[in-house]
Amino acid sequence: MSHPRAMVVAQSGGPSPVINNTLRGIVEAARDLDQIDTVYGARHGIEGVLKEELLDLSSQDPSEIALLRTTPGAGSIGTCRYKLKDHQQEDFDRALDVMAAHNVGYFLYIGGNDSMDTAHKMSQQARKRGMDLIAVGVPKTIDNDVGDSEFKLIDHTPGYGSVAKYWMHMVQNANEENAGSCPADPVLVLQAMGRKIGFIPAAARLADPGREMPLLILLAERPMPLEAVLDHLHDRLRRHGRAIVVVSEGFDVGGIGEVKDSFGHTMFSSSKTTVAQHLVNMLNDRGLPVKGAARGNVPGTDQRHAMLLASTVDLDEAYRVGQEAALLAANGTSGFMASILRNPGTVYGVHYDKVPLELVAGADRSFPASWITADGCDVTDEFVRYARPLVGDDMVSVPLIDGRQRLSRLSPLFAAKKLSSYTPQADRPAKKISAT
Amino acid sequence: MSHPRAMVVAQSGGPSPVINNTLRGIVEAARDLDQIDTVYGARHGIEGVLKEELLDLSSQDPSEIALLRTTPGAGSIGTCRYKLKDHQQEDFDRALDVMAAHNVGYFLYIGGNDSMDTAHKMSQQARKRGMDLIAVGVPKTIDNDVGDSEFKLIDHTPGYGSVAKYWMHMVQNANEENAGSCPADPVLVLQAMGRKIGFIPAAARLADPGREMPLLILLAERPMPLEAVLDHLHDRLRRHGRAIVVVSEGFDVGGIGEVKDSFGHTMFSSSKTTVAQHLVNMLNDRGLPVKGAARGNVPGTDQRHAMLLASTVDLDEAYRVGQEAALLAANGTSGFMASILRNPGTVYGVHYDKVPLELVAGADRSFPASWITADGCDVTDEFVRYARPLVGDDMVSVPLIDGRQRLSRLSPLFAAKKLSSYTPQADRPAKKISAT
Repeated sequence: MSHPRAMVVAQSGGPSPVINNTLRGIVEAARDLDQIDTVYGARHGIEGVLKEELLDLSSQDPSEIALLRTTPGAGSIGTCRYKLKDHQQEDFDRALDVMAAHNVGYFLYIGGNDSMDTAHKMSQQARKRGMDLIAVGVPKTIDNDVGDSEFKLIDHTPGYGSVAKYWMHMVQNANEENAGSCPADPVLVLQAMGRKIGFIPAAARLADPGREMPLLILLAERPMPLEAVLDHLHDRLRRHGRAIVVVSEGFDVGGIGEVKDSFGHTMFSSSKTTVAQHLVNMLNDRGLPVKGAARGNVPGTDQRHAMLLASTVDLDEAYRVGQEAALLAANGTSGFMASILRNPGTVYGVHYDKVPLELVAGADRSFPASWITADGCDVTDEFVRYARPLVGDDMVSVPLIDGRQRLSRLSPLFAAKKLSSYTPQADRPAKKISAT
Repeated sequence: MSHPRAMVVAQSGGPSPVINNTLRGIVEAARDLDQIDTVYGARHGIEGVLKEELLDLSSQDPSEIALLRTTPGAGSIGTCRYKLKDHQQEDFDRALDVMAAHNVGYFLYIGGNDSMDTAHKMSQQARKRGMDLIAVGVPKTIDNDVGDSEFKLIDHTPGYGSVAKYWMHMVQNANEENAGSCPADPVLVLQAMGRKIGFIPAAARLADPGREMPLLILLAERPMPLEAVLDHLHDRLRRHGRAIVVVSEGFDVGGIGEVKDSFGHTMFSSSKTTVAQHLVNMLNDRGLPVKGAARGNVPGTDQRHAMLLASTVDLDEAYRVGQEAALLAANGTSGFMASILRNPGTVYGVHYDKVPLELVAGADRSFPASWITADGCDVTDEFVRYARPLVGDDMVSVPLIDGRQRLSRLSPLFAAKKLSSYTPQADRPAKKISAT
């Protein structure tokens, strides 16, 4: 029997401005690959696989696929935070049933560490069942926390360059705001995403590589007593009359009433309050050494869907890594994640490679401690050298119609369902314990 | 004695992405006006006048003045929230002393209603003293609350078109986020500026004039019991499985621990919590009718300094209104605000005119009640027809160097001080009552 020729692509975790360009890379590469016929997008990640909601991407208008390049977020095929846990054997069986029913021989999962773990398990489960399923991971995370701390498995993840560019520009502009408005608003607190890893707040330094702004960068991995934060802040206020504080959403300021997602990650945007609000309140309660009050911005999801601030380098790499993943799949290379490695030397360039899924699934990147300055409230020039090439030099050109963005609009060409309906295990109502 | 030929320009209130282009319009127009020699920028508005901090704008590198077009915020000459209250006679006297000492015959104040009030008072005080001071107001506010509700004094204020464009694009992109991430994050709450007037949150409708998104728009001027908000929201969730709520920072959700500025305005970004957070908490406490949690973004000052989302129409009008104000001043037209009026008919176009400062200072624009839909959670097509032309059709081209924005950098060419130092009245320490 020949290898089944359909491919399922799914996305998991938080989206990015470039995740759809990875999807486009996969779909466009698959057009020229004889091993692959139809590419399906699973609606909302693995949930769409379980529910047999498979969107035919190969039959879409090619212009709509091309428009994925400048369509942020994951509205095209959706993403999810559904986790396939080891004990959810019914889910694994169902997922493989769906794959088999639709002649799926290739499963590409776009996501972070957790998604690589899911892809890895799917590949193992398929092998156990004797199914000929090629599973390939495709990296995506704005946090840049996929892979190892030595950058040998992957240098950086598509999505990070764009959120870094967001922070570069936003802080440049916020500095103009703060400089102009400081008699009333001398302290501007900006809360950055990144649960426990500081690549996103660190990118604020790209706004000011020459260190001219009164900028504090507080990373979750470098906790600091609030008194020490105040000391650093008051120092900036005394010298500049104003300060900008970029703080990680995971910076420890005491309990903020966290809400967890199904991966067990804290969902900071759903918490009872925010780190930024907590800092603003504390600063205003204690009083500043200058007149005026502290204020805060919590850009939240905007940093991961502001299409106009997407990095052109990131867009290109996201596309290429999608193509590479499709090639890996077509070549029968199962159990790997497509990866991006930086060329040695001072001239920025990357090449594409692969790493075993199990290495990535288990890896836990941390922000290099040596890239945090001794005082704990800045990052070093070495970080700037690492991150600067990722944001590129130009603005992305975004197609507009009547002033609005022309976003990709896929047609609802769903594959006809072949199996009975199914409720994912974790979505079932909890069993009631009988009173008798 | 000939009319004194120096001009002082000052800015007040919150900045906008285009406020500097108005400043540029004034400075560039003044170059060709024989009546005006040096244009000074008062550092941080009227505070800079009182402190005799006058930046020579006429001697700046013309390229830096030109770069004001794409430099957001008010970092160039600064803004303030200092209010000249009627009883602060010392302040008025001092301001006029400074004007006289520097041969200032023209005072241009860029700001909103409160600033027009200040400009008006300065003009009255000068007349009382027999000083030959021409005071002209220049409109600026992102809230679009300057002028009358019939749009006869002014159609719209520079700054509004850009923040409207910000919301148009941000909501378009946020909708992609929400559509993609709804299995985990079905409700996205976005908090808009605008103390008590709904032009800013209303602009979210520009993202979706065809009403395809599950979008709720909650304006401060249309209070609604939280139960009613829940009803509307649950309706969207049942029909779409997701919803985006754009809520004014001034929407009444009960006490949020407001902090007031010196104008008496609530500073929502300095409050103990935010309307968005309050809504998110309430939704998550009560539980949604779909799986997942609500989350919120509070873009805060970003909406008024995101240079890349500035409206090209707004930029042009901001520039022109600055030029017009300079012409009014040069022609000796004191006591007026330069204004923008929409041409009659369906083809968008404006002409520039003037209105007496006292009319604007006392005016209190409200969002037309007829532009709010009957259910209270949307705005009408008539609003869209009003606002759509203000955001323009194109993206602004922002100069970049090494990936970063090349912002205007003025040289610190301050006029030599001629008077003794002065502490503005409201900044003086409160008098201590002797214990004996």
